[in-house]
Amino acid sequence: MTTVTITHAPSNYQCPFCALAEGVDADRQQDIVRRTAEAIAFVSPRWWPNNHGNLLVVPVRHYENLYELPVEAGHAVHDLVQDVAIAMRLTYGCEGVSTRQHNERAGGQDVWHYHVHVFPRYIDDELYTSNPYPEFVTAEQRQPYAERLRRYFAPEGPGHGPS
Amino acid sequence: MTTVTITHAPSNYQCPFCALAEGVDADRQQDIVRRTAEAIAFVSPRWWPNNHGNLLVVPVRHYENLYELPVEAGHAVHDLVQDVAIAMRLTYGCEGVSTRQHNERAGGQDVWHYHVHVFPRYIDDELYTSNPYPEFVTAEQRQPYAERLRRYFAPEGPGHGPS
Repeated sequence: MTTVTITHAPSNYQCPFCALAEGVDADRQQDIVRRTAEAIAFVSPRWWPNNHGNLLVVPVRHYENLYELPVEAGHAVHDLVQDVAIAMRLTYGCEGVSTRQHNERAGGQDVWHYHVHVFPRYIDDELYTSNPYPEFVTAEQRQPYAERLRRYFAPEGPGHGPS
Repeated sequence: MTTVTITHAPSNYQCPFCALAEGVDADRQQDIVRRTAEAIAFVSPRWWPNNHGNLLVVPVRHYENLYELPVEAGHAVHDLVQDVAIAMRLTYGCEGVSTRQHNERAGGQDVWHYHVHVFPRYIDDELYTSNPYPEFVTAEQRQPYAERLRRYFAPEGPGHGPS
């Protein structure tokens, strides 16, 4: 495995996903639906009109993009993506799940910490041609999605167990 | 890790990615740019107007989707996605790379063997809003992209080494 460093983050970058992983961003902690040793999954505040409650999965440690991601962090993110994709499919009432991952400005990246988007999908939802809402949705809007997933992963839930 | 089986493939499904992995589809073998023990990467014949030469990465063994993918196969695909993303970034002249992965009809899946799309990206390429060409591109059109990547991974190339 050869990794490569190609960076776009400003030198003084204040990483929002590191703040979330470290618990600095206290208001956002209830968005976290599952945490493993090396990755966290949380409800994104950026919503698309027909795909409410999409998730982001990130490594706990800071890596800007796929090119520089260590193998272990990549596997941890993959495992958590799979877990939350199944949880989403079984609890949201959606009819499919899709993921996407962007590297560099030209690749559509706008937060400089590796992340995988996990979307609930519905027939004719036009995910790729619709624009996200211009403003972040509120914590109250995100909460029912986060709670559904947390219940799934809770000790008494169907998704309980080591990742 | 809890896996789940949700299937859309017809019972007599003739899987094109299994044919490619097994070498049955001899015409397509030159599309394969890298093969590891559990995964293969190949140039897709389905092209988008501004993102020529996109790749597909699949597990060698047949699994329909992310929900049922064993951990080892998922990691093998992730590792190969990372390798070819770096190779693409260093050899295509692109300015970014993005990936996507679709599960079930509603999720945009149309081949019933788990696969990850890897796209070369360029500023303002409109990947998400452009439609792919209606017909598959020819082997001759795919060949220069496959050769560029094979040279990268060749014993004398910069990407040589165990995956």
